Amino acid sequence: MIIHMAPGASGEQTQRVIDRITRDYGLRCETIEGDTTVIGVKGIAGIIDEGRITELPGVDRVIRISVKYKDASRQFQPEDTVITLASGQKIGGDHLTVFGGPCAIESEQQALDSARMSKEAGVDVLRAFVDKSRTSPYDYRGLDIDRGLEIAAAMKAETGLPTVSELIDLRHLDAFLKAGIDILQIGARSAQYSPLLEELSRVQVPVVLKHGFGNDMTEWLCAAAYIMSGVDRAGRSTAHGNPNVILCYRGIKSFETETRFAADISMIPLVRQRSHLPLIADPSHSSGDRKLVERVAYGFVAAGANGIEFDIHSNPAEALCDGKQAVGRDAGRIVSHCRSIHGLLGEVGYETGGSKRVGVGAK
Amino acid sequence: MIIHMAPGASGEQTQRVIDRITRDYGLRCETIEGDTTVIGVKGIAGIIDEGRITELPGVDRVIRISVKYKDASRQFQPEDTVITLASGQKIGGDHLTVFGGPCAIESEQQALDSARMSKEAGVDVLRAFVDKSRTSPYDYRGLDIDRGLEIAAAMKAETGLPTVSELIDLRHLDAFLKAGIDILQIGARSAQYSPLLEELSRVQVPVVLKHGFGNDMTEWLCAAAYIMSGVDRAGRSTAHGNPNVILCYRGIKSFETETRFAADISMIPLVRQRSHLPLIADPSHSSGDRKLVERVAYGFVAAGANGIEFDIHSNPAEALCDGKQAVGRDAGRIVSHCRSIHGLLGEVGYETGGSKRVGVGAK
Amino acid sequence: MIIHMAPGASGEQTQRVIDRITRDYGLRCETIEGDTTVIGVKGIAGIIDEGRITELPGVDRVIRISVKYKDASRQFQPEDTVITLASGQKIGGDHLTVFGGPCAIESEQQALDSARMSKEAGVDVLRAFVDKSRTSPYDYRGLDIDRGLEIAAAMKAETGLPTVSELIDLRHLDAFLKAGIDILQIGARSAQYSPLLEELSRVQVPVVLKHGFGNDMTEWLCAAAYIMSGVDRAGRSTAHGNPNVILCYRGIKSFETETRFAADISMIPLVRQRSHLPLIADPSHSSGDRKLVERVAYGFVAAGANGIEFDIHSNPAEALCDGKQAVGRDAGRIVSHCRSIHGLLGEVGYETGGSKRVGVGAK
Amino acid sequence: MIIHMAPGASGEQTQRVIDRITRDYGLRCETIEGDTTVIGVKGIAGIIDEGRITELPGVDRVIRISVKYKDASRQFQPEDTVITLASGQKIGGDHLTVFGGPCAIESEQQALDSARMSKEAGVDVLRAFVDKSRTSPYDYRGLDIDRGLEIAAAMKAETGLPTVSELIDLRHLDAFLKAGIDILQIGARSAQYSPLLEELSRVQVPVVLKHGFGNDMTEWLCAAAYIMSGVDRAGRSTAHGNPNVILCYRGIKSFETETRFAADISMIPLVRQRSHLPLIADPSHSSGDRKLVERVAYGFVAAGANGIEFDIHSNPAEALCDGKQAVGRDAGRIVSHCRSIHGLLGEVGYETGGSKRVGVGAK
Repeated sequence: MIIHMAPGASGEQTQRVIDRITRDYGLRCETIEGDTTVIGVKGIAGIIDEGRITELPGVDRVIRISVKYKDASRQFQPEDTVITLASGQKIGGDHLTVFGGPCAIESEQQALDSARMSKEAGVDVLRAFVDKSRTSPYDYRGLDIDRGLEIAAAMKAETGLPTVSELIDLRHLDAFLKAGIDILQIGARSAQYSPLLEELSRVQVPVVLKHGFGNDMTEWLCAAAYIMSGVDRAGRSTAHGNPNVILCYRGIKSFETETRFAADISMIPLVRQRSHLPLIADPSHSSGDRKLVERVAYGFVAAGANGIEFDIHSNPAEALCDGKQAVGRDAGRIVSHCRSIHGLLGEVGYETGGSKRVGVGAK
Repeated sequence: MIIHMAPGASGEQTQRVIDRITRDYGLRCETIEGDTTVIGVKGIAGIIDEGRITELPGVDRVIRISVKYKDASRQFQPEDTVITLASGQKIGGDHLTVFGGPCAIESEQQALDSARMSKEAGVDVLRAFVDKSRTSPYDYRGLDIDRGLEIAAAMKAETGLPTVSELIDLRHLDAFLKAGIDILQIGARSAQYSPLLEELSRVQVPVVLKHGFGNDMTEWLCAAAYIMSGVDRAGRSTAHGNPNVILCYRGIKSFETETRFAADISMIPLVRQRSHLPLIADPSHSSGDRKLVERVAYGFVAAGANGIEFDIHSNPAEALCDGKQAVGRDAGRIVSHCRSIHGLLGEVGYETGGSKRVGVGAK
Repeated sequence: MIIHMAPGASGEQTQRVIDRITRDYGLRCETIEGDTTVIGVKGIAGIIDEGRITELPGVDRVIRISVKYKDASRQFQPEDTVITLASGQKIGGDHLTVFGGPCAIESEQQALDSARMSKEAGVDVLRAFVDKSRTSPYDYRGLDIDRGLEIAAAMKAETGLPTVSELIDLRHLDAFLKAGIDILQIGARSAQYSPLLEELSRVQVPVVLKHGFGNDMTEWLCAAAYIMSGVDRAGRSTAHGNPNVILCYRGIKSFETETRFAADISMIPLVRQRSHLPLIADPSHSSGDRKLVERVAYGFVAAGANGIEFDIHSNPAEALCDGKQAVGRDAGRIVSHCRSIHGLLGEVGYETGGSKRVGVGAK
Repeated sequence: MIIHMAPGASGEQTQRVIDRITRDYGLRCETIEGDTTVIGVKGIAGIIDEGRITELPGVDRVIRISVKYKDASRQFQPEDTVITLASGQKIGGDHLTVFGGPCAIESEQQALDSARMSKEAGVDVLRAFVDKSRTSPYDYRGLDIDRGLEIAAAMKAETGLPTVSELIDLRHLDAFLKAGIDILQIGARSAQYSPLLEELSRVQVPVVLKHGFGNDMTEWLCAAAYIMSGVDRAGRSTAHGNPNVILCYRGIKSFETETRFAADISMIPLVRQRSHLPLIADPSHSSGDRKLVERVAYGFVAAGANGIEFDIHSNPAEALCDGKQAVGRDAGRIVSHCRSIHGLLGEVGYETGGSKRVGVGAK
């Protein structure tokens, strides 16, 4: 951490900054004196809350060098995290994983038809979404939870594929696990809801973590740190902590109104460089339009994503939720081309270290 | 609702759209035929989920006329909602309410000192924030909840002021109400977490509702509709519903990095026109800088806000959270000038109808 | 165009809207009467300035159906525009064109070294940038224009490649053409400067048109319409008009600070669907970081771009301008993988009609 | 300037950075060695192009301390710039200046009627806009320039008020000055077009400088530096330079679609603190809606703007351009309340130093 003192700051003010860092965090400082004073903090300063330094009199600005999201950072783990599912499938590193299936479970018939179509298309993990987070309380929010979980289990039985399902209400965690959901997903609207993140730090089930559409990269990786670290509200380490986090990029709000969200393609190689966690991307929710999904999927894979997650519906025109972005019979072609692009490029063009194997099925 | 069919859409496609609207929502349609076809839906179409129409073959676009957030809209209640607290204080309409106090409770001493300073400054409602939602799990998140609630009660006893406190974990609701918190606040990171909003629809305590920093006006007012409507996940009306919502504007993310958030001043008169709910604004969290807070507060009041909420700390330089934006001894001047501006302008410059009295203390 | 009248609008107000459309634009209208009134305008309403209808009393909103940028739209030309350079090279349709070279000409040595490196890497069109538009007047803005143009000519002579160069000052147009520049480029900061766009409508030289980092798709394609249409300020068609426009996507401003601009990958298939013009993309200026450029380039090509333009510098560490994003010896690998991805995918996944041949060398 | 070297950077890499700064800019450096190395540059480093340091091997990041826009900065001129017009009116410091009039000159009748209405409303400077920069070439762009300038002169003669008019085409500069325009305005679409800014650095006429809707504060103040500094493209100081710049804030693009632009109220006190230049704000173009303009104007003045500029039209419903945001008969009330708010608050709440008198009429 570097602290720049304002022009005219006094020696006492500089000393007070140094004293706080030494007293509260046990770190040493050194200074450069010129027209203004620069304080350099020695040692890993990741734990300093810069807001507490910024407010001191005479401070112009505080420049953070160590990242805030250390659990998710390559600074502290150079090799890729590779997660192994109970089924033996691996996510992350040089594996490409395709998540697909209906946006929401609407009925047993629709769910099973869409599941079969997804299996035929070649997906690796099946979307089995029971609960939907919607902007308006009047929009479709899913079937009754218990009934939805029954159907999710039937989708898994029918296809033999592992399932992913969004957990919204933290009080449903046990029911989701009991119903055999293999991977839990955190959606955009829950992406910074800390009580939910903390619940997930106490289990070992893999979590697909989306960012909110108003979140930047640091906020996203800090949400991952909530799940991974298991620190309690007093900042103390606990026995908990869930390392099985899969990041899912889904675009952010921007002023462009022709696309639903701005899916910044630079984020794919950037997040792969900054974090060791597996990174997938969602071409359906980012573009919001079936006519764009296919090419956006190819873009994500070519840019280096470890996988994609997209909506497949047996009958998009009758979907109760987000039918506009669901893919029907083209799903197989999309999966197949994604695998070809991944095969063509491999890991060319950036270094990501080796792989560290973790996960529920890991020995 | 207006539906525009794409060039070349067939008569069958047009008929299918009309059939769905008639069958699923019981509404009548009429068409204009030109180069393309326009379908007009007759009657209040607010309940239609436009996503379900957009996806039908041949549809170019769906234009929503009725708002999605009907509970919060002036279309359905022209007069201002005025909320009366148990203390008899009124919020909304032509009242100006100042919420102030420390960003977070850090210790009994700091809390009581800041509470006294806030009372002297002339605030109407005291911030007594026990739980803090933070980006990083390593940042200060508040004292133990029970201890924090004790101190909040002491702040109220010491000053005689009603208190506002953020509710993050929905499992704490009873404890907050038992501890005598007068107004609950929903923060930016919980602003679209529907299980929490639904819990608040089952009580009658007033709720200050912030929007997320990635939310637009419609998303914000839809969150209000979750609290106000009490509809269940199947879309059925229930006996519940909490009309006592106070909107709090706090700025959105933008590309400008010199201010913490972009606090769009146009939103103040706009939201007052679109919604009958009381609207306050937060100059501390939007600007993020004590040197800006004062003038931003004046801007909000002059633009027509029903109040402001800002951070007051007895010793900003020692604050554990957001000290950079807290005001100290200048708080009294700010409150006093806000009241002068409000007195000067009154309700000039836009029509808001009369007032409808609701609230916990209302007869 | 569809006009929705506000609740309570009078019959006279509706009639006034219809009269204005009939009188000023010669178009017929029809209405649907329900709780509110909907007016449908028959015939192509692309020329109506909706601002002039919106302001009429009783109007709630105006919904534009015809696009504003008709010259650039596939609504009016379904087949791809393919531009043929004097050298015979084709841009657009199913061709992939790689533009590359130094960000700016700094010296004869640097320019020729970078040109040779770019040629070896396999680029099709050579960047020969004489004038630089910079945020600050104190930043490097290029050599003297005449000297720069001499070097640009030498780069072309040395490599035999056609050259592209940014035209900033409209008074330099003749000099650029006389110096043999093959393609002119409009940069982000000039992207809506209409006098410059109008100058380019009077010549037939191909133009690479970037959008401003604050522009949405409609503003960008309207800028193309300025060049293509040649309409004068009174809105009259003239004998002029330059159809040889190549769109270049370069990302927009967003709240994410870790990438320089947000390069929304959905824009690639979207713009290809909406416009018949060739579309390239710039991975260097969008990402702003050499470590991201390669994978971003692959993402753009996989998403369907007709080409890329990127910075290649013989010695990035000594570059006077944007060295951080320039690629050195890796350029050849990037070009080669882009061609492989393009070969693998072809035009799969979206329909773009056939091709219309235009261009300076076209018969 | 502070340079942070990446972990693992070698001593040679650090030395190369220091050598470049010493060699190219003649400034001295000092270092702090810890886990990583921090280099502090001594002396005013405002002239360093940080892009040229960032690209050097081993550099992690460069932190700029001195602002890039030194001509416009309070770091280099603590006291307010106050501009005196030929008429003796003063702009900046503790003066409040109201600019008003029609968005565009459409006809002699409309222009003179609107001018009289503006005069009666109490404006200080009259908008007389001859040339309009429009998104689409098919929108209304103003009368023939010569005819427009004649009418602008008639508006001035009729009211006795000084006039402000937007200069778009740099080749019109002489004609505008000859026609007696008192203040030139730079619009959003020309805000970073350097050839135009450089032309304005060679005259002494006051310039109202808007920022582009995609520009941040630094880009805006750098555009002011182009006009004020008069440095040539080789970075050399010249005899030119125009200090008479009036900043005009007009909001930026954001994801909120209900307001035209996001007018961040925090920017008003922020820009007043960072720059000594007079700062006005435009409530018409930022909000885009007549129903919002009045309250937004009050917000800007209460936040500390030195004035406002807004659209007044004698008959908004017949306006050819932006009629939706023009104010009619309410203009007088708006002007009067703005003056009351300014009188109430004065310069309370932030320090801006004293005033430095410059301007065309200044001795």
